[in-house]
Amino acid sequence: MENFKLKENERLDDLHRKGYKLIQDPKKFCFGVDAVLLSGFADIKPNETVIDLGTGNGIIPILLEAKSEGKIFYGLEIQEENAEMAKRSVIYNNLEDKVKIVSGDIKEVYTQFKSVKFDVVTSNPPYMQSGGGLVNPFAPKALARHEILCTLDDVVSAASFLLREGGRFYMVHRPHRLADIICTLREKKLEPKTLRFVQPYKDKEPNLVLIEAKKLGGPMIKVLPPLIIYNDDHSYTEEAYNIYYN
Amino acid sequence: MENFKLKENERLDDLHRKGYKLIQDPKKFCFGVDAVLLSGFADIKPNETVIDLGTGNGIIPILLEAKSEGKIFYGLEIQEENAEMAKRSVIYNNLEDKVKIVSGDIKEVYTQFKSVKFDVVTSNPPYMQSGGGLVNPFAPKALARHEILCTLDDVVSAASFLLREGGRFYMVHRPHRLADIICTLREKKLEPKTLRFVQPYKDKEPNLVLIEAKKLGGPMIKVLPPLIIYNDDHSYTEEAYNIYYN
Repeated sequence: MENFKLKENERLDDLHRKGYKLIQDPKKFCFGVDAVLLSGFADIKPNETVIDLGTGNGIIPILLEAKSEGKIFYGLEIQEENAEMAKRSVIYNNLEDKVKIVSGDIKEVYTQFKSVKFDVVTSNPPYMQSGGGLVNPFAPKALARHEILCTLDDVVSAASFLLREGGRFYMVHRPHRLADIICTLREKKLEPKTLRFVQPYKDKEPNLVLIEAKKLGGPMIKVLPPLIIYNDDHSYTEEAYNIYYN
Repeated sequence: MENFKLKENERLDDLHRKGYKLIQDPKKFCFGVDAVLLSGFADIKPNETVIDLGTGNGIIPILLEAKSEGKIFYGLEIQEENAEMAKRSVIYNNLEDKVKIVSGDIKEVYTQFKSVKFDVVTSNPPYMQSGGGLVNPFAPKALARHEILCTLDDVVSAASFLLREGGRFYMVHRPHRLADIICTLREKKLEPKTLRFVQPYKDKEPNLVLIEAKKLGGPMIKVLPPLIIYNDDHSYTEEAYNIYYN
């Protein structure tokens, strides 16, 4: 790409999809396996409208654009420097027509998006409940991992508000928060519909959970067999490999 | 055993533990894999007091007595003919001092057990939400499988009432009810602490879920790797075999 220049500390990572690349700054926060798995789990149908809450460097809307025939993919991000970097990735991949990075606070969607409803909301929110003792609670990494700028309740409330009736919310989170997640979803009228645990190995406890919930859905949940990432010989399982590279 | 006679339709099944046998009537209801798995999952510590809600033919308290060093095991059963049959199994196995089958209604524990608290409550309740269309809603099999005489809410309320603070509730249920289960447990102050899904084969969806909840426990849930029952060649997995026979 002409005139393209990375800023200091930034690098350009291959997303293994349609030749897309993503600008990342390892000093801030790099996307992890969770974002890739969420993008593999979210089932976006042709022409659907999607918004990702807390999009960071934009990994999720860019991957979803690559793998689906959705119509438009918004990414909402509160940290200005992340949003700016995500916008440059969108431009780098020539996705300006389909991926829109928007600056804003998950807690303010009620005014920022007051007259629009989405078919799908996605989120890879901070997992850890905020507590004292963080070295620097305002560092980008801490903000991405800890519930400092938004809680699970904030994310689920925003998702419920943004969805049309019957719309779907896809989230990745930690299994140890499962009771919080399920009860919060129900409270906000997002009925949990599909659950998939992610285990590093077949005999290890899951360290991630993928959840699909439906706005005003009926009470019936489908639990899928776990997604196993590695074989015993530490190679990727076929399913994990396909999510990453195919 | 002297003077021991089965009634018409009854049979005597080997429990593969301490030589215990169980009287069952296939015309009514025979215990299933779920009761055996729940007994394997429930962790009864020495000297603990236990009550099983809706004990049917008494399979759970009898198996728990065999596999633990608990002090006493109550089985509460509403259907008189089940309770009578369970009592005969207790006598057959010489367990009268440790296993007590009691006639009663889960919805009446608030008076029947008003001055006693237990360390552990177990239950293998009806899984299916009651609806119209049952051929004979008062047949023993229908009562064991459908929420006719008691709902999930009734069972969880009773368990919460019967437990001391910090006491544990072990239940087996269907994964598709997971959101109902988790939200009901929380509402009744039983915090879900451990979850284990049971899959028939490693690539098949779970058809049972084992749950441990703690009275007034803190919000942190541990999800275990699934329990797989059969190998691909349809033999028992080592773990399932050990739960059944060792």
